[in-house]
Amino acid sequence: MALGFSLGLLWSLPGNRLSHPQGAKTIMPLTPEQQEDVARARAQSTETRRVTVPALEEILYQPTHVLDHGFVRVIDYMGDDGAVVQAARVSYGKGTKKASEDRGLIRYLIRHRHTTPFEMCEIKFHVKLPIFVARQWIRHRTANVNEYSARYSILDKEFYIPAPEQMAMQSSANHQGRGEVLEGDEAARALELLREDAETCYRHYAEMLNEDEDGNSVDPGKKGLARELARMNLTLNTYTQWYWKIDLHNLMHFLSLRADPHAQYEIRVYAEIMLDQLKRWVPLVHEAFTDYRTGGAFFSAAAMGVVKDLIGGKEPTQDSSGLSKREWRELMELLERPEE
Amino acid sequence: MALGFSLGLLWSLPGNRLSHPQGAKTIMPLTPEQQEDVARARAQSTETRRVTVPALEEILYQPTHVLDHGFVRVIDYMGDDGAVVQAARVSYGKGTKKASEDRGLIRYLIRHRHTTPFEMCEIKFHVKLPIFVARQWIRHRTANVNEYSARYSILDKEFYIPAPEQMAMQSSANHQGRGEVLEGDEAARALELLREDAETCYRHYAEMLNEDEDGNSVDPGKKGLARELARMNLTLNTYTQWYWKIDLHNLMHFLSLRADPHAQYEIRVYAEIMLDQLKRWVPLVHEAFTDYRTGGAFFSAAAMGVVKDLIGGKEPTQDSSGLSKREWRELMELLERPEE
Amino acid sequence: MALGFSLGLLWSLPGNRLSHPQGAKTIMPLTPEQQEDVARARAQSTETRRVTVPALEEILYQPTHVLDHGFVRVIDYMGDDGAVVQAARVSYGKGTKKASEDRGLIRYLIRHRHTTPFEMCEIKFHVKLPIFVARQWIRHRTANVNEYSARYSILDKEFYIPAPEQMAMQSSANHQGRGEVLEGDEAARALELLREDAETCYRHYAEMLNEDEDGNSVDPGKKGLARELARMNLTLNTYTQWYWKIDLHNLMHFLSLRADPHAQYEIRVYAEIMLDQLKRWVPLVHEAFTDYRTGGAFFSAAAMGVVKDLIGGKEPTQDSSGLSKREWRELMELLERPEE
Amino acid sequence: MALGFSLGLLWSLPGNRLSHPQGAKTIMPLTPEQQEDVARARAQSTETRRVTVPALEEILYQPTHVLDHGFVRVIDYMGDDGAVVQAARVSYGKGTKKASEDRGLIRYLIRHRHTTPFEMCEIKFHVKLPIFVARQWIRHRTANVNEYSARYSILDKEFYIPAPEQMAMQSSANHQGRGEVLEGDEAARALELLREDAETCYRHYAEMLNEDEDGNSVDPGKKGLARELARMNLTLNTYTQWYWKIDLHNLMHFLSLRADPHAQYEIRVYAEIMLDQLKRWVPLVHEAFTDYRTGGAFFSAAAMGVVKDLIGGKEPTQDSSGLSKREWRELMELLERPEE
Repeated sequence: MALGFSLGLLWSLPGNRLSHPQGAKTIMPLTPEQQEDVARARAQSTETRRVTVPALEEILYQPTHVLDHGFVRVIDYMGDDGAVVQAARVSYGKGTKKASEDRGLIRYLIRHRHTTPFEMCEIKFHVKLPIFVARQWIRHRTANVNEYSARYSILDKEFYIPAPEQMAMQSSANHQGRGEVLEGDEAARALELLREDAETCYRHYAEMLNEDEDGNSVDPGKKGLARELARMNLTLNTYTQWYWKIDLHNLMHFLSLRADPHAQYEIRVYAEIMLDQLKRWVPLVHEAFTDYRTGGAFFSAAAMGVVKDLIGGKEPTQDSSGLSKREWRELMELLERPEE
Repeated sequence: MALGFSLGLLWSLPGNRLSHPQGAKTIMPLTPEQQEDVARARAQSTETRRVTVPALEEILYQPTHVLDHGFVRVIDYMGDDGAVVQAARVSYGKGTKKASEDRGLIRYLIRHRHTTPFEMCEIKFHVKLPIFVARQWIRHRTANVNEYSARYSILDKEFYIPAPEQMAMQSSANHQGRGEVLEGDEAARALELLREDAETCYRHYAEMLNEDEDGNSVDPGKKGLARELARMNLTLNTYTQWYWKIDLHNLMHFLSLRADPHAQYEIRVYAEIMLDQLKRWVPLVHEAFTDYRTGGAFFSAAAMGVVKDLIGGKEPTQDSSGLSKREWRELMELLERPEE
Repeated sequence: MALGFSLGLLWSLPGNRLSHPQGAKTIMPLTPEQQEDVARARAQSTETRRVTVPALEEILYQPTHVLDHGFVRVIDYMGDDGAVVQAARVSYGKGTKKASEDRGLIRYLIRHRHTTPFEMCEIKFHVKLPIFVARQWIRHRTANVNEYSARYSILDKEFYIPAPEQMAMQSSANHQGRGEVLEGDEAARALELLREDAETCYRHYAEMLNEDEDGNSVDPGKKGLARELARMNLTLNTYTQWYWKIDLHNLMHFLSLRADPHAQYEIRVYAEIMLDQLKRWVPLVHEAFTDYRTGGAFFSAAAMGVVKDLIGGKEPTQDSSGLSKREWRELMELLERPEE
Repeated sequence: MALGFSLGLLWSLPGNRLSHPQGAKTIMPLTPEQQEDVARARAQSTETRRVTVPALEEILYQPTHVLDHGFVRVIDYMGDDGAVVQAARVSYGKGTKKASEDRGLIRYLIRHRHTTPFEMCEIKFHVKLPIFVARQWIRHRTANVNEYSARYSILDKEFYIPAPEQMAMQSSANHQGRGEVLEGDEAARALELLREDAETCYRHYAEMLNEDEDGNSVDPGKKGLARELARMNLTLNTYTQWYWKIDLHNLMHFLSLRADPHAQYEIRVYAEIMLDQLKRWVPLVHEAFTDYRTGGAFFSAAAMGVVKDLIGGKEPTQDSSGLSKREWRELMELLERPEE
């Protein structure tokens, strides 16, 4: 339906809002109209005095598909690895001025949590995602957001149905994760319920609205319920979309939480795509970030004591360590030691 | 109590999570257990050297009901009218030190948008609200939020069904509001759809979870779907709840947008209750806020020209004013002049 | 001196840090080295698929001088008028899709304080400014800042000495502004004190540091005081510099406060330059902003009553209006009516 | 000069602004008037239904002195350890409901960087500090601030002069720290310069103002320079003061940076006092914070490899480790191993 305005930077699936076949479980190919929109935006090329990043320009505006109907695409950006270095040098002065030291400086900044130089870069994404994922995502308050509004417009008939290998049971080990995958009848039944309920709710949403794509009544004998009310009938796996703009520091914070193995799968897949986009944009920052944040670990004072004892050949125990059982177990996992 | 934890400050409807009769359309009375929780919190009384506000203490912890299952209650607060004055005097110095001038000073601060003194007061609410309302609310990023998580816990079977007089059609005048109320069969059918779809979706949610209140399997032959997945089957009118903490300046900004006639009814009713709570907390700030923000109006340079012309007895027209038709219409409405 | 790193985007006055003649009261011309830095940055030109703004590109990296040693220059930007429109259309949907309506849409957004679309644009400045101005500026917390650090580096010998026509007495009318200009001996004496004290303090700062530009001891018999300590001897009119990055919405908020006649002259001159840069960057936003924010006025409910009475030919008085004397006076000034 | 207003919550040194003996290097005792202000505030005692923290109430309003003229005092607070637990349980639900598990839950939240529950507590300080310290402090943008304004009011004649044992030379090891202490003539000369320049600048500031404490002309033949201009003649060690309000999460972030050994001494002494106040307020949070943040350490993926090798009895070297020399040295220091 065609936001499809001239600049062509936001779109969904025109022409088939109320009718396109759902649940095909394959990546939805773009319609010709959308492909044209992206192609047009990508074809524009102007001269700029600003810093540019060719590796990121290469994929600018291009959606990367995720889940069954979602995508992420980079719409705009400001700055590069050099802009971080430049900002750091304003603060830390002439002691670090050799260009060859850029990589070391960026690693130093990440290691010591000097965050302000990373705030000097900015990136803007266009994301399509299920509402229950959007609700987790929006908790990060340090970004700018413009979301497609169901008060003003009609949502497309698109909802997330997990792939069979994602249909997992509640984890027994912790209160938040997933355990083993459901199989057989139980899985089939759950998938059927998810699909049927989403479809039924959407069909009734459309019926209550009583509007076609041009805003005309479907049944002229009816008035139609206000959009801001009808939307409440939709299920939480319905897709929404937004522009999301954030600085590099806060993006890394978001990614460190959402690309983490403890994050829910349905948001983690977005974060993983964004990690790739980060790598194209600021490769030195990406390398340092990966080494220090996603691959690193934090040790408490007590845990440091255990580590030093182990290195010194002593045999610390949970009892002697001052750590709780849970802390001890987490530490042994980090050190890849079989729990005694 | 609970969420039933010992401190008793958050609760929903224990004992009937999966089964209580829905749609009674009357305000849900608290269970005896909840009444006890509130009573216990309200019974506590300690000495403090801090500033206190008796009118707000009077209603502390007490839920004010709203919509069919929602509520707002004040859980904690810091500061009062005097704390605003005190902070302003730090900034603006000795010229304003007479206590009798507090009201004038507060009005001056509001009039001239000096916002930092209002940031010195803080308030914490516990709110129960439908998810589609929570999605509007959360756009205000300057607050602190802890929301009940459906990844960890099971949501109650409670969803918002509008009262009949709220079932309105889409406004033809603008793209966002509601027009006249739906009546007869169309209204009855829509209410039935809303109720049935919410109930069906919730029933299937419970079935997929396969858990009773104590986390045991209902059907031991089934594994149950992870909570973080099952929740996506719920409709957007399902109730959630959160703690929401904000400073006085940002609260007023929130209220100026959400207590406005253009705000959606379902969020406005919350804002109106919070306006009453604001009045108890900081009566001088409330008075100035009401006069300047919710009752006031902003005029552009061009609109100021029209106002001066009108006062001077001239007869400005839309053409001569430099205003667009829309701007002219909005201005004439503000000045309560019949459109010519 | 040369932070002078390869990208050439930050610099001050190389070669004469401890010795250049001060107080010439003319705009300090750039050194050849700096002119080269700017020229090199301006000479770079690459292809981009991003939105560009030729009018802003024209002045990119070019410093605009202000006060006696200060400047502002735009270093980078993201987005344009179209990006605001695009973001608004994501939120408000298909009802507003004609390109011809961009201007009206932007005016509508400003008039109704819909702020999120303006957050989709970002701009980065490099600013050189006196420390007492920096202290006012930094109160705006919604920007990203990297300031030249006097813990790590040595500040240049540059301080602000007001032009004679800026040497004003304390205003008797209010507690914050300036009144009439000082003249004769008193002005001369004050200027002399400002200049002498700044010079003496700087000379002693340099003496305590005991470092030349390359970090070598000036007097090998002395150790030199740590930079983080020595800096405390500098006066508040010493110049500092920073990168300052902000989104368009928060930039307008900053400008509405700092380009205001009530703002201190020494920060207002910066805001006025930035208003010109805003005009190059987002001309439609600038026009709406100027009309609504800097040229407009806010009326309280009571003031609206007075306005309506005046238009209706009545003769409201301060007594009858419910306004305080101060409010009445401010209103009459806005309406340009001689106070009775 | 006596802000000394009725509520008595802000004050400085009345009656001796232009004359009290400076540099006595002993803690300035409060004047009788100030002692009365604090005593009056501390004497108030009212009933509240809110959570109170007796250990913090004990020191409420009471200034703790720091440096030569500075202080920190807690003015107000909201919440306690229990409020953190309560907020976490809203989010993480019934799985953690035993009161006996509060300590473990708080440690878990800190260890896994779950920050939102800590945002539910708030604290307000009144701080008196040198301007160059205030400039570091204000970089933390997530707090609310109201600072004494030298545009509106006259600053007291109070400036920071370091104790002799704080007069250190620039560190040769890094670009920011201090090295060994200066002694003999060089130290004496520097102290003399700091004191004399601050006194001279202040004397000229007062002369340019030409105002006594009541705002009357000292020399009726002169007009006096506007306060907003005269202040620029002050040195950066002049004291200012502010109210500073922050939530518990952001306070811990501030303290982890500013109570760190790498922080400048003059801000670290404030942070250390605030750590004590934190301990009184939220002892469980303080304990976890101390163990995990100030006593803990972060290891990169590569550093983790070295640690595992060392525990396994291997002999990793800088070369084999993938770490830079600097990273290797920092790691060996953390593990307290003599560098080979």
